[in-house]
Amino acid sequence: MPTISERGVIMPSSPIRKLTPLSNSAKARGLKVYHLNIGQPDIPTPEVGLDALKKIDRKVLEYSPSEGNKSYREKLVSYYAKYNISVAADDIIVTTGGSEAVLFAFMACLDPGDEIIIPEPAYANYMAFAVSAGAVIRTIPSSIEEGFALPPIEKFEELINERTKGILICNPNNPTGYLYSRAEMNQIKHLVMKHDLYLFSDEVYREFIYTGSPYISACHLVGIENNVVLIDSVSKRYSECGIRIGALITKNKDVRTAVLKFCQARLSPPLIGQIIAEASLDADIDYMQDVYDEYVERRKFLIDRLNRIPGVYTPIPMGAFYTVVRLPVDDADKFCEWCLSDFEYEGQTIFMAPASGFYMTPGLGKNEVRMAYVINKEDLGKAITVLEKALQTYNNLPKE
Amino acid sequence: MPTISERGVIMPSSPIRKLTPLSNSAKARGLKVYHLNIGQPDIPTPEVGLDALKKIDRKVLEYSPSEGNKSYREKLVSYYAKYNISVAADDIIVTTGGSEAVLFAFMACLDPGDEIIIPEPAYANYMAFAVSAGAVIRTIPSSIEEGFALPPIEKFEELINERTKGILICNPNNPTGYLYSRAEMNQIKHLVMKHDLYLFSDEVYREFIYTGSPYISACHLVGIENNVVLIDSVSKRYSECGIRIGALITKNKDVRTAVLKFCQARLSPPLIGQIIAEASLDADIDYMQDVYDEYVERRKFLIDRLNRIPGVYTPIPMGAFYTVVRLPVDDADKFCEWCLSDFEYEGQTIFMAPASGFYMTPGLGKNEVRMAYVINKEDLGKAITVLEKALQTYNNLPKE
Repeated sequence: MPTISERGVIMPSSPIRKLTPLSNSAKARGLKVYHLNIGQPDIPTPEVGLDALKKIDRKVLEYSPSEGNKSYREKLVSYYAKYNISVAADDIIVTTGGSEAVLFAFMACLDPGDEIIIPEPAYANYMAFAVSAGAVIRTIPSSIEEGFALPPIEKFEELINERTKGILICNPNNPTGYLYSRAEMNQIKHLVMKHDLYLFSDEVYREFIYTGSPYISACHLVGIENNVVLIDSVSKRYSECGIRIGALITKNKDVRTAVLKFCQARLSPPLIGQIIAEASLDADIDYMQDVYDEYVERRKFLIDRLNRIPGVYTPIPMGAFYTVVRLPVDDADKFCEWCLSDFEYEGQTIFMAPASGFYMTPGLGKNEVRMAYVINKEDLGKAITVLEKALQTYNNLPKE
Repeated sequence: MPTISERGVIMPSSPIRKLTPLSNSAKARGLKVYHLNIGQPDIPTPEVGLDALKKIDRKVLEYSPSEGNKSYREKLVSYYAKYNISVAADDIIVTTGGSEAVLFAFMACLDPGDEIIIPEPAYANYMAFAVSAGAVIRTIPSSIEEGFALPPIEKFEELINERTKGILICNPNNPTGYLYSRAEMNQIKHLVMKHDLYLFSDEVYREFIYTGSPYISACHLVGIENNVVLIDSVSKRYSECGIRIGALITKNKDVRTAVLKFCQARLSPPLIGQIIAEASLDADIDYMQDVYDEYVERRKFLIDRLNRIPGVYTPIPMGAFYTVVRLPVDDADKFCEWCLSDFEYEGQTIFMAPASGFYMTPGLGKNEVRMAYVINKEDLGKAITVLEKALQTYNNLPKE
């Protein structure tokens, strides 16, 4: 039997995946499992998007252009303009989800062995795309005590060497909910400028900023226009994770030319997803406001309740719909597993994502979990009650 | 400005892409351009597929499982059984088009520097996916004189070295329309067995076999079940290129485990495409027969007419909907370009794909083009008349 590739071996499998079979057996045992582990919102997709889907009246579901439909890219220009991001339709390449945008950005910009620096905890799949591209991710820890603020810029300087090609940020952040301040974004800008690095900026959660702080996009930073590669997706914005529509946006023509070759090889992004995403740009202001208000409400509720549990601490997330929570346990991996395999409270249990999967530095995040507030407030309340009971029971278990 | 990656530079851009702007300006000048260059069928998508699309009644367009919807994978089992391909639902991983299946197969099976052997001419994007994976493609020419039959197996043996990890075939073949015989498939099988290679087999055109010859799938070859990775797609079968649904199928559990990690990183294949593809499996027998009859008719018509033009020769393609045609010109690249930029006949011209884009060996296919018979017979007839006139004019041009 021929052997599989090294990257097939080292490709990370997230700890969430490891727990999924346990969650399934908990359900099979009749338990209600509250999913705080995933970023699949329960929020309805905008009606205009669903209507556009039903109205598709084509005889042939044909390829769309490799760079995406022109009408969609043109309409995106006005969308970005609302955020003071000034781009032309030709700066935008439509991708199969934000995932493909990250992969193609790495493929086009990084050679095998090239390094990028990412503050951790970070979205676990960046690592997977780096493995695909043969690139190396170096991480700098941010800490729960500092609310996951940008680590001191000197820490970045220390890691920079001749193989360093870029910085990657996610803003607002998954998993921490942190939003970089203007001062922090300027620090990043100067670093990028000084070392002529790429700045890969994943900003798929820009709709979800709760603090009144300004949203500073990487595209707002004057002087590094040719360094910035923006990663985007409609998945979270419109609760359209399944249509697989993202975008890669850059003013750097060489990067676009290279990315486009990867796009041409895979022929076309999904046609129907593009039609839905284009229509969803017309989602009325009430829809967006309702979604926003719902997350504001859930966030307040979740954070308040969590921080009242003895030994539990989470900073107040400023954006996205996740928060990283410190629990009074030694090993959150084991605790999350135990919740699914051994615990129940009144026929219920909870599925949380161990934070270890978001750190690359071994040992970090050992007593942290990521919670996504993508379920309704009532269920969120029940889930936190379950967590409270679980912690009491777990910490009173006889020590082995 | 940071530099782009080496693979971004060497990534091939197909000669068809180079000609597209010329085709667009020909259209802008008011010319009718007959597209023989692309594999986008004009055949309608099955009604059952389009109906399923209109009936989607979901409130949230959510992620589907990374490996694809279970209901779709289960239904595919019966589809393959009709072709005597015996697979379980768990052997099937749903991908974003056949393109992603090729990419993930390479990523999971090949290390950078590993080699695979492909008979040429071959689908140009295999090369692109190899570049993405850092793998090396070695080609063995097949010839128009032999009707593009499998090259002698000794030619494969000559190329095999310690970095050789696999063979890739496309059967029925794009661009040649060739269908490998049972004897040829057995030769491939013994080679694969002897050297313990992967056999990547792209069989997306299995519905389109016109000669009464048996379809021998790589999955029919007894004894190399763990070596075979089948690439599939609904794009051509149901005229659903835009929905981006393919599949990677293998009995090799290690390969599936590795491929699944790449699938998990990109989260999910398109949800709506899967719903349409699943429904399309119920396309009635009349639909499939009509499509088949239409291609049979076009093929006969095209081949007959082509072979009557002085100096033009094409073998009779046994499957798919392409044929490679030798033209009485020195340089088909230049001729194809000239047809779009300088020629017209009664307000019409033709867009053909220079075959050079399908060969890796420099200089091969210089006087060949690929034609796709994906336009209706009437237009096909006009296109051939235009070709005839173009050849007369071109060959009477004053020599530079």
